[in-house]
Amino acid sequence: MDTVQGGDSAKVRGADPARRGRLRGELTVATIARLAGVSAPTVSRVLNGRSDVAEDTRRRVEQLLREHGYRRPGAILPSPGIEVIFYGLESNLAIEMMRGVQGVVTDHDLGVGFTEVMVDAPVQRSWCERMLARRPTGVIIVHSLFTAEQHAQLAASSIPLVAADPNGQPHQPVPSVGAANWGGAVAATRHLLELGHRRIGVIGGPGVSLYARERLEACRAALEIARVPLDPGLVRTGEFSFEAGLGLGSELLSQPDPPTAVLCGNDLQALGVYKAARRLGLHIPRDLSVVGFDGIDAGTWCDPLLTTVRQPFRDIGAAAANLLLALIAGPVPAQTRIELPASLLVRESTAPPPA
Amino acid sequence: MDTVQGGDSAKVRGADPARRGRLRGELTVATIARLAGVSAPTVSRVLNGRSDVAEDTRRRVEQLLREHGYRRPGAILPSPGIEVIFYGLESNLAIEMMRGVQGVVTDHDLGVGFTEVMVDAPVQRSWCERMLARRPTGVIIVHSLFTAEQHAQLAASSIPLVAADPNGQPHQPVPSVGAANWGGAVAATRHLLELGHRRIGVIGGPGVSLYARERLEACRAALEIARVPLDPGLVRTGEFSFEAGLGLGSELLSQPDPPTAVLCGNDLQALGVYKAARRLGLHIPRDLSVVGFDGIDAGTWCDPLLTTVRQPFRDIGAAAANLLLALIAGPVPAQTRIELPASLLVRESTAPPPA
Repeated sequence: MDTVQGGDSAKVRGADPARRGRLRGELTVATIARLAGVSAPTVSRVLNGRSDVAEDTRRRVEQLLREHGYRRPGAILPSPGIEVIFYGLESNLAIEMMRGVQGVVTDHDLGVGFTEVMVDAPVQRSWCERMLARRPTGVIIVHSLFTAEQHAQLAASSIPLVAADPNGQPHQPVPSVGAANWGGAVAATRHLLELGHRRIGVIGGPGVSLYARERLEACRAALEIARVPLDPGLVRTGEFSFEAGLGLGSELLSQPDPPTAVLCGNDLQALGVYKAARRLGLHIPRDLSVVGFDGIDAGTWCDPLLTTVRQPFRDIGAAAANLLLALIAGPVPAQTRIELPASLLVRESTAPPPA
Repeated sequence: MDTVQGGDSAKVRGADPARRGRLRGELTVATIARLAGVSAPTVSRVLNGRSDVAEDTRRRVEQLLREHGYRRPGAILPSPGIEVIFYGLESNLAIEMMRGVQGVVTDHDLGVGFTEVMVDAPVQRSWCERMLARRPTGVIIVHSLFTAEQHAQLAASSIPLVAADPNGQPHQPVPSVGAANWGGAVAATRHLLELGHRRIGVIGGPGVSLYARERLEACRAALEIARVPLDPGLVRTGEFSFEAGLGLGSELLSQPDPPTAVLCGNDLQALGVYKAARRLGLHIPRDLSVVGFDGIDAGTWCDPLLTTVRQPFRDIGAAAANLLLALIAGPVPAQTRIELPASLLVRESTAPPPA
């Protein structure tokens, strides 16, 4: 016999102390079905994540299951926690986001779960099914690369979901938190213009990446508005890696009329440009100014310290957690898209152009 | 009425399918007390983590509670997961260890929880109580800085516990996984000796750190055995930071008879020495060889690539998870201390000394 056990597992701890233990005892799937006004097999179909259930019905049943803290007998117990799912994010940034999430949710006595999904993993679905089997209180997806199928699976679970992506907007319609890429890139460009640079090179991320395009177009717009149009010969795009920065930076700097400054798509590319400059005997910032994007720790372990656009990874994690708690607590909040500012951090790698 | 609900929450998922759901139904604290041959108040004392219970009794009661997947009604549900507790470990390393843990435990359908403890946090005990309230399946503590009080609290919970510390042995008597600091430091020293270096400087970690001492003493021993005794004037100790490497490296390299090679306590110190060398116009590795310790990503984003002793952080996480699963599954395994080798990774920052 399927039973429904009481408790407030699907609620935020402490949100409603009066509810605690109220529903203790055993409720059968049949009871849930009666409460929802559907048949028991329909409840089972919802429990099994099947898609052949009308949208309204599914929502109603899931709502009841959550309210009653349902779990399948003998199955994995609900985990009173927030699961954070990463798609191969740079280590430094992942920990910062985890810190932000933890800072918010531990006050609600919720645990924080960590899952890293390998984008190229052979069995793409398994992480999703496994995570759903743990029936977490809520889920934060970092990066928006999850598929329409995974999104449907998550949505069908009725487990509250938020996308936290410093780098762009989710492809799927979920509440999300991000950073203002456009504003950050504009600030970096203006900084170089104000220093007096007129030959400014840009190394962007891969062309298929929306946010890489956003940063590149922001640089282009800021330059055009300042009447310093971007020279197409000074633009390169490639992976967000140290190696790409080294290779593309070498190309840019070896030209007959090289740029006096390079705006990079991220900090790793910028560190690659450092190496390219050193190989060519160029001193940063005397001969060349370099600006990164992200604000990783390694930008303070290089010489000179890297001027960059800092993304507020910890704040993004915290904002995602707060948005998720709001979703767990009640109806969809008014604001379901939050963008935090990315701010220019002027350190040592930028200076006026050589005379 | 306190109830005991069935299920196999305290067992490794899939370890014993026949158990699943066997104990479903309601068992009172009185029943547990009867099974354990103690009074109900004694069971309550155990549940509340009180210390005024005889050791044998506590173990017997906890064993029964775990077997029956006990949870307090209305209380937080047991989390079927492994909790990993960090004490401010370097981001890059933390993620690697999480990856190792995740790789092992997801095969057992367990979640992985993340908690970072701030050593200087005003309320030291709260993370421990909160984590215990989630009643995880097992706990991995990274770094061994937890206090005797916390250790007692964790031990009293009877939740299986493993220490995973790349940097040393735990101060408390718990099964643990670490890396061979001594062997790694010896390998680094021999590498420099084989290249022909005879004036070798050593920058060590803080003197209060046992593993910093272990690395330093390993260098000293390897040098003495090679009849190249360590010159006390070439030894410095300080924080495991970029800034310390810069400061102490500058001291060493500014001496009238400077070393031709420097062994560093970790990679951050080594990157600091890079900066010190550059400031003094010294080329690495032509004028100076530098060796780090850890193998962080940033050692591949510098110029030249850093020769270092790589610690197998992911493997340490995986080994800790496997040891923990063994503890969860049954009696204490035969081996409760595992050391994984730390291997020398020769890259570009070492070369024969200048002629």
